[in-house]
Amino acid sequence: MNEINFKRVAIIGVGLIGGSFALALKKYGFTGKIAGTGRKKENLVRAKGRGLIDEYSTSASETVSDADLIVLSTPVGQFQDIFKTIRKNIKAGAIVTDVGSVKAEAIKILKPLMPPGVSFVGSHPIAGKESSGIDNAAPDIFKGARCIITPAPDTDKSSLEKILALWTALGSKTSLMSPEQHDWIFAATSHLPHVIAYALINTILDLNQNTLPHSGPSLRDMTRIALSSPELWRDICLYNKENILKSLNQFLSSIIHLKELIEKSDADGLEKEFQKAQTGRWLLEKAAP
Amino acid sequence: MNEINFKRVAIIGVGLIGGSFALALKKYGFTGKIAGTGRKKENLVRAKGRGLIDEYSTSASETVSDADLIVLSTPVGQFQDIFKTIRKNIKAGAIVTDVGSVKAEAIKILKPLMPPGVSFVGSHPIAGKESSGIDNAAPDIFKGARCIITPAPDTDKSSLEKILALWTALGSKTSLMSPEQHDWIFAATSHLPHVIAYALINTILDLNQNTLPHSGPSLRDMTRIALSSPELWRDICLYNKENILKSLNQFLSSIIHLKELIEKSDADGLEKEFQKAQTGRWLLEKAAP
Repeated sequence: MNEINFKRVAIIGVGLIGGSFALALKKYGFTGKIAGTGRKKENLVRAKGRGLIDEYSTSASETVSDADLIVLSTPVGQFQDIFKTIRKNIKAGAIVTDVGSVKAEAIKILKPLMPPGVSFVGSHPIAGKESSGIDNAAPDIFKGARCIITPAPDTDKSSLEKILALWTALGSKTSLMSPEQHDWIFAATSHLPHVIAYALINTILDLNQNTLPHSGPSLRDMTRIALSSPELWRDICLYNKENILKSLNQFLSSIIHLKELIEKSDADGLEKEFQKAQTGRWLLEKAAP
Repeated sequence: MNEINFKRVAIIGVGLIGGSFALALKKYGFTGKIAGTGRKKENLVRAKGRGLIDEYSTSASETVSDADLIVLSTPVGQFQDIFKTIRKNIKAGAIVTDVGSVKAEAIKILKPLMPPGVSFVGSHPIAGKESSGIDNAAPDIFKGARCIITPAPDTDKSSLEKILALWTALGSKTSLMSPEQHDWIFAATSHLPHVIAYALINTILDLNQNTLPHSGPSLRDMTRIALSSPELWRDICLYNKENILKSLNQFLSSIIHLKELIEKSDADGLEKEFQKAQTGRWLLEKAAP
């Protein structure tokens, strides 16, 4: 059942995730051809040289023609321009998916541009790394990781099944969520933490760069995600704006409350809040997959 | 040179750090006796049973008598009461150290209580774990880790040498810092991250506990330190209040700036800030020991 029912795959944006997806396909039973496209030719040459892709073109339109699966793995801000370019070359019956962290806006952009007979099924593999680029691509980053599939009410059922089977074949634990539910949940559990990590590093830089050598493991662990691509996270902030702002406002209430307790030297209040968080973190430890 | 020049060590507060210190002493050449004290007798019984300490008493005064090294490893908020109780029993020539994260206030509390002929040298081994308690104690948590020694201008030089030699013998990389410099640096690089981690978990709890099972590795890494002891971090916030508030205010400026950029959908502004943070995080990666 969990077969890879595609013969020709086009990957738009051969970076860490696109490149890892290509390697995973080859490792887990895909026997067809993989074509890649992207902004930098030298990157595509390297991707072909390393055996990630079988062929490449800097023309996205050329890359998608004949493909029965098209994977968008660029920052979401590029989806519209790319799709306007490629839509005429997508063959009927093809399925389009993406690997992005923002779903509702992506669908809003892509839906009116989808050619007849071509269906879109959104995917979000929870499998990033901070180090980007094809040199960090690896076939097993999806194995054992969750992958959220976000069908809309009108998503083609057979295409949905094929996308579910695909990610399962790559070793992912799939689950279904509406695009809106996805965006609200990941605003809080992923997008907000990224914004905080960026702000924390900038705080240290603004306070005094000389403190950097004195950082301990706690600061390093908390800010590892600030190594992530600025362009990617800029787009996520723009395309999931309302949800992120809601989470961010809640976070500001939370930390301003702690600040006030510190100002008042309110020992009991601080201990109560820290206790609540410690218990919550235990819940997370148990709840997380 | 890096010998352990003590014959009888008293550990006040046999938890993760106190217990690990005892195990490290035994592993790295200490041949004397270790006495432990703490609030819970059952904990002391277990510590003796596991071979961390050689003897125990719930009376701190009893424990310190005859000790030539006294290690305070309780939250800093307990230092004053403990020291008022034990000071008369400390023998002349003994050295007192601590393992806490706040130095200037600790010295302010301890200095007027120090008996004649007894010297204090502050230590801060950067070697915590989130899981507290003696069951998580391990002899090698100080090995390869930094240990900041914070002499004041009037600290006895020979005692300072002995404390430096002690931590070096346990495998730590020691460095010297004034108490004030220490507290300012660690407010930014350690205390602020802890406050943020607690606030972030409380944010997720307040938004919707049902999102917890959907957390990815980024949220888990960022909040691991929220598992730390609420009592310990309450005290650190109270005793390093001014430095922490300065760092916290800078962080609030930083994150409110990002919030405003998101509100304005300022793509260039966001990318610039994220870029700055990404570069800063690389600096940290290279600068950190």
